[in-house]
Amino acid sequence: MNFADRLIAGIRAKNSVICVGLDPRLDRIPLFLREKHVQAEGKTLEAVYHTFLEFNKGIIDAVADLVPAIKPQLAFYELYGTAGLRAYEETCRYAHSKGLLVIADGKRNDIDSTAEAYAEAHLGHMDLFGEQVPAPFAADALTVNGYLGHDGILPFTKVCARDGKGIFVLVKTSNRSSGDLQDRMTVDEKISIAALMAHFVESWGSDEIGENGYSSVGAVVGATYPKELTNLRALMPNSFILIPGYGAQGGSAEDLRGAFDSDGLGAIVNNSRGVTYAYEKTGATAGGEDYAEAARDAVLKMNEAVNGVR
Amino acid sequence: MNFADRLIAGIRAKNSVICVGLDPRLDRIPLFLREKHVQAEGKTLEAVYHTFLEFNKGIIDAVADLVPAIKPQLAFYELYGTAGLRAYEETCRYAHSKGLLVIADGKRNDIDSTAEAYAEAHLGHMDLFGEQVPAPFAADALTVNGYLGHDGILPFTKVCARDGKGIFVLVKTSNRSSGDLQDRMTVDEKISIAALMAHFVESWGSDEIGENGYSSVGAVVGATYPKELTNLRALMPNSFILIPGYGAQGGSAEDLRGAFDSDGLGAIVNNSRGVTYAYEKTGATAGGEDYAEAARDAVLKMNEAVNGVR
Repeated sequence: MNFADRLIAGIRAKNSVICVGLDPRLDRIPLFLREKHVQAEGKTLEAVYHTFLEFNKGIIDAVADLVPAIKPQLAFYELYGTAGLRAYEETCRYAHSKGLLVIADGKRNDIDSTAEAYAEAHLGHMDLFGEQVPAPFAADALTVNGYLGHDGILPFTKVCARDGKGIFVLVKTSNRSSGDLQDRMTVDEKISIAALMAHFVESWGSDEIGENGYSSVGAVVGATYPKELTNLRALMPNSFILIPGYGAQGGSAEDLRGAFDSDGLGAIVNNSRGVTYAYEKTGATAGGEDYAEAARDAVLKMNEAVNGVR
Repeated sequence: MNFADRLIAGIRAKNSVICVGLDPRLDRIPLFLREKHVQAEGKTLEAVYHTFLEFNKGIIDAVADLVPAIKPQLAFYELYGTAGLRAYEETCRYAHSKGLLVIADGKRNDIDSTAEAYAEAHLGHMDLFGEQVPAPFAADALTVNGYLGHDGILPFTKVCARDGKGIFVLVKTSNRSSGDLQDRMTVDEKISIAALMAHFVESWGSDEIGENGYSSVGAVVGATYPKELTNLRALMPNSFILIPGYGAQGGSAEDLRGAFDSDGLGAIVNNSRGVTYAYEKTGATAGGEDYAEAARDAVLKMNEAVNGVR
């Protein structure tokens, strides 16, 4: 089964197109968790590891029956070196044990054998002295950057086809200055760089289209650009779209209307801060002890809002 | 001192513009090292960690007096999860102890607070329960991808200015299909996307130009495109160029002529496989016991060849 079919199975089972971003920021994790682990381990990397992992597990437990996928952002784990990445690895394993798909947000990119190494590292297998075994960080899908062109992507699509995994290529990102490069029009095709990348995405996935009509090569398009979202949806009929920018960055459910196909499929909408730090707004407890309940409430509300437009 | 001045100090001290890439691939590391650590630890991740680290230390010892910098490629370490990244972290520390600069080849990219996290992770500091301490993976410079535009780069340049670090933005990469996107001409400026990125690079670095006329924002341009290298050098008079693609990928010393300024500065040329796996070509020992000497010989020859054209 290709990745898109696996994702769609999850979407149908949960009746949700939401993906919860797990971006642990130490200063925003509930105080009661930080205090607990600092008391046990001091102000150390070991305490960071335990704090991240317990926080993430709490979120996962609270939302596992409501959403098909989580999206950990690698930057926040790398910041704490191998301690952070141990929390990352165990978070992925825990999410898998709860039936969730893991979309690793790493925006990796390189060429040839280096792109192969990234593909195997985040989706596939490592060579352990002659034996092929699953790589420690292997997730179900990975975000990638296509600036390097076709031969920077091919190593990823090979692993996707072999192992039933997926990639999401950056097409139109949610940030304010994404247009610096992505909105530039090309002389030959008279289309934007984002549209050109959309054509690449569609072609890179064309060999591996699943039962539901979607390939293992998806695209990232920000909720903050609803017009482009609609246009890019049309340019990539066989590509799933991963949509960041909902909530904290300003995108609303209304902005997502153009992202879905006639079956209400074809897109998955991420929310990180709006879910994991929802407890900051309730202010119900001094130490944030209600963070998991607050996250669950936020997801329930978002499921309702987003299901309303698809 | 900004990063470019630190790099130039190293270049002058060693009379070398060469950077040695440390891209450990388990199946190409000398057999005698693999056998030693498998004997001690079995075919385990722990054995990978020891094999990578001893291999890298051997290379560093062999070349530390000959080159200003090393460039570990993160993909090859990530493939082995936290075991690989422990080897990465200790390799960086060892290189620093030998007076080498570390250019982390991670091609990281994201927006806003996530880009900040990457910048701090690979160049700066982490927040350890309220205290700012150097991040475990902090190197001297990092390769980054500018597809996301200005606000994806700003968080990196802030850390560079604060901590004397540098970035190298992908402009024209060394791979065959780099032109898919990078050679596309823009309607407004009638220049290639690579040239547009070069203008961005020059402007992103304009606030932070060091004593030698170079900013902390450099560019990546492949040795495999000598004509573009000459043109892009002219477009970015204040940006250092990191040049991959020498040796294994086909670039020669002759191809580098256009990369240097009139003082023979402004570029640093990477070689990974041609140095670290030079022992495969000597075939002098059955188990690759001469790998460090072979690496040293390869660097001596490359220094001579590249110094001949600058």
